[in-house]
Amino acid sequence: MIHLPFLLTEDGICRLEEGCLSILDRRRFPFERVEVPCRSAEEVASALKAMVTQGGGPLEVALKTMIMEARNHERLSSPDQIRHLEQVVRLLSSARPTNTTMARSLDEVLVEVEKRRDEPPSKVVEEAVRTILDRFAETYHRIGRLGSTLIDDGDQILTTCFAEHTFLLSLLYAKQAGKRVRVLVSETRPYLQGSRLAAPSLQEAGIPVRVITDGMGPTMIATGAVQVYMTAADLVCRDGTVVNKIGTLSNALACARYGIPYYALAISPDPTRKTRADVTIETRDPKEVTECMGTRTTLDTIEGVYPAFDIVDPRLVTRIITPNGILKPDELEEHGR
Amino acid sequence: MIHLPFLLTEDGICRLEEGCLSILDRRRFPFERVEVPCRSAEEVASALKAMVTQGGGPLEVALKTMIMEARNHERLSSPDQIRHLEQVVRLLSSARPTNTTMARSLDEVLVEVEKRRDEPPSKVVEEAVRTILDRFAETYHRIGRLGSTLIDDGDQILTTCFAEHTFLLSLLYAKQAGKRVRVLVSETRPYLQGSRLAAPSLQEAGIPVRVITDGMGPTMIATGAVQVYMTAADLVCRDGTVVNKIGTLSNALACARYGIPYYALAISPDPTRKTRADVTIETRDPKEVTECMGTRTTLDTIEGVYPAFDIVDPRLVTRIITPNGILKPDELEEHGR
Repeated sequence: MIHLPFLLTEDGICRLEEGCLSILDRRRFPFERVEVPCRSAEEVASALKAMVTQGGGPLEVALKTMIMEARNHERLSSPDQIRHLEQVVRLLSSARPTNTTMARSLDEVLVEVEKRRDEPPSKVVEEAVRTILDRFAETYHRIGRLGSTLIDDGDQILTTCFAEHTFLLSLLYAKQAGKRVRVLVSETRPYLQGSRLAAPSLQEAGIPVRVITDGMGPTMIATGAVQVYMTAADLVCRDGTVVNKIGTLSNALACARYGIPYYALAISPDPTRKTRADVTIETRDPKEVTECMGTRTTLDTIEGVYPAFDIVDPRLVTRIITPNGILKPDELEEHGR
Repeated sequence: MIHLPFLLTEDGICRLEEGCLSILDRRRFPFERVEVPCRSAEEVASALKAMVTQGGGPLEVALKTMIMEARNHERLSSPDQIRHLEQVVRLLSSARPTNTTMARSLDEVLVEVEKRRDEPPSKVVEEAVRTILDRFAETYHRIGRLGSTLIDDGDQILTTCFAEHTFLLSLLYAKQAGKRVRVLVSETRPYLQGSRLAAPSLQEAGIPVRVITDGMGPTMIATGAVQVYMTAADLVCRDGTVVNKIGTLSNALACARYGIPYYALAISPDPTRKTRADVTIETRDPKEVTECMGTRTTLDTIEGVYPAFDIVDPRLVTRIITPNGILKPDELEEHGR
C-alpha cells in the first residue's frame, strides 16, 4: 500500500472549515506545523505571493478558495455570484504567474459554472472542484507509476526543490516493485524547499535521502554519483520546453554533458504555451536571496537577483512524464494533450 | 592608485604580535570584525580546519605561524629548532589538504632553513617568509594586470566564492583602464563566502555587485547576463585541470555550452600534480551543508554531503592566468612554471 507523507495529504496542504481556509505554512515546515488562516480570496492571494505554500500547493489552495468564496457569497444573485467568482479567479491566477496549472484549473471551474447557469453556483463550484481534485489525484498516481519504470534498482536520484506527489509516487512505486532507491536533494535556496520539504517528506516515506547545496548537483552528476535527475515541471510548453525552479538548468546541463537522463514530471503540459517565448518568469524580491530563514547573509547595502524559475531547452530534457505517457519533448505537440 | 579592501590587507588576514597570531574570523565577517588568537601551531591548525580563514588566507597565516613558532623556540638547539619547524610544517600542511600553495610555500621555508644551517633558524624563517610574501604580493598585481586585459568595458562578470587579491585586482586594473565592470557573486553555500566576503569586498572597492544563489549562475550565463566567468583556483595541475570551490563546475559547464569564457586565476600552478588523479579533495563535515550561519536548515535526522571542491576538466577552462602569462590549459605543462 502506498502512503504519502504528511505534506502531500489533503490536510497537509490546506483545510477548509467554516468559511476559513487554513493553509499549512511550508515556510516554517519541518520545524513547526502551523497554518495561515485565510477568510477571503484576497488573503489567499497574499499568502500565495508570500510563499506560504508553493509548487503544487497553490493548485489545491486556489480550488478550495473557490468553494469558500462561492459559499460566502451564496446570497448574491446568480449573475453577481458568477461575476464575483470571475474576479476571484483573476486575483488568484496572478498571484504566482509562472505555473499555469492553477490558472487553467480555475478557468475550468468558471466554464462549468457558466455551462450550468440554472444551478446554484456554489453547488456547481463544489462539484467541479471535487472532480478536478479527483482527476489530479488519479493523474499523480498514473505519473508515479510511469515514473517508477524509469528508475532502476540501486539508482541514486538527484532532485531539485520539492517535486511533490508525482516524484514521491515514482519512488514509492519503484520501491513497491522491489527497487532500492536513494535520493540526493538540492537544498534549493533561497527558500530551502529541498532541505525543508523534500528531504523530510522522503525520509517520512522511508526513502534514504541526503542534502547537497545547489552548486553540488553537477559535481554529483560528473562524478558518477547520480543515475537519474528527476524534477517536477512548473510549466511545460508544447515544444517540450520545461520550466522549473531556478537551479534546474544547471543540473540539466550537467546531465546532457555526462549522459545522465533528465526526466521532468508534468501533470499538465500547457497547450496554450507554444515555446519559451510564451512563458512569464516570475521575478521575486531580490531581498529573498540575501537572507536565509529570515537572517541576512550579507550587508544590508548589497542587493540580490531572483528570477524564480529556469527555462530548460527541450534538447536538455530526456523524457517528459505526462498523464498521456512517457514522451520525448518533440512528441509533446502530438501526444501531450 | 589601487587600494585593496580591508579583508585583503595584511591586517585583514592576520596580525602577529608578541607571540600571538590573531586571525581575522572570516566566518563572522561582515557582521563582526573579530579575531581568533592563536599561540601555537596546533591552535592555528585547528583554526584553519574550522575555516576561521580560507582561500588564500591560510597561506599568509601559515607563513606567519612559522615566524611565531621559530621565535617561540629560539632557546632550543639549532637541530631541535629545525626538527620542530618540520613538525609545524606537517601539522599546518595537513589542515587543508586541497590547496597545496600553502604546503609548498612552507616547504620552501624549510629548504631555506636547511640551506643556511649556520644562521639562527628564527632569522632565516623571518627573511624567507618576508621574501615569499613579497613575491606573492608582486604575483597578485602581475596576475591582476593580466586578468584586467580579459575584461571588456561593460562586462558583467560572474564569480564563485571569494577569489581574493587576483580577482579584485583584475577588476580594479580594468576599472583604472576606464572599463565599466559589474559583478554577479554566487553566494557559495554552505559558508556563504560569496555573500559575506566577496560581495562586501567588491562593494568596498567601488565595484557594483549583486548576489545570486548557487543554482542561478548557469541561468545567468544561458540568458546572456554574463560575459565572463572568473574564479580563483585552489589548485592547478600540470595538465590544466583546475580545482576550485564546489559550484565552480556547474558554471564552467554552462560557459562551455553557451560560449562564455571561463578564466581561472592561478597564483601558483602545482608542478607536483600532473592530473586530477593527483588531487586530494577535502571532504568536510556533512553537517555544514544542513546548516546556514549556525541554524539548522532541515531535520536533525537528515544528513548532508560536502565535498568541498570541484575538479574542472581542462577542456572547460578557456584560459589560466598564471604569473607567467595568460595560458591555454594545454600550454601549462610547458610555460606554467
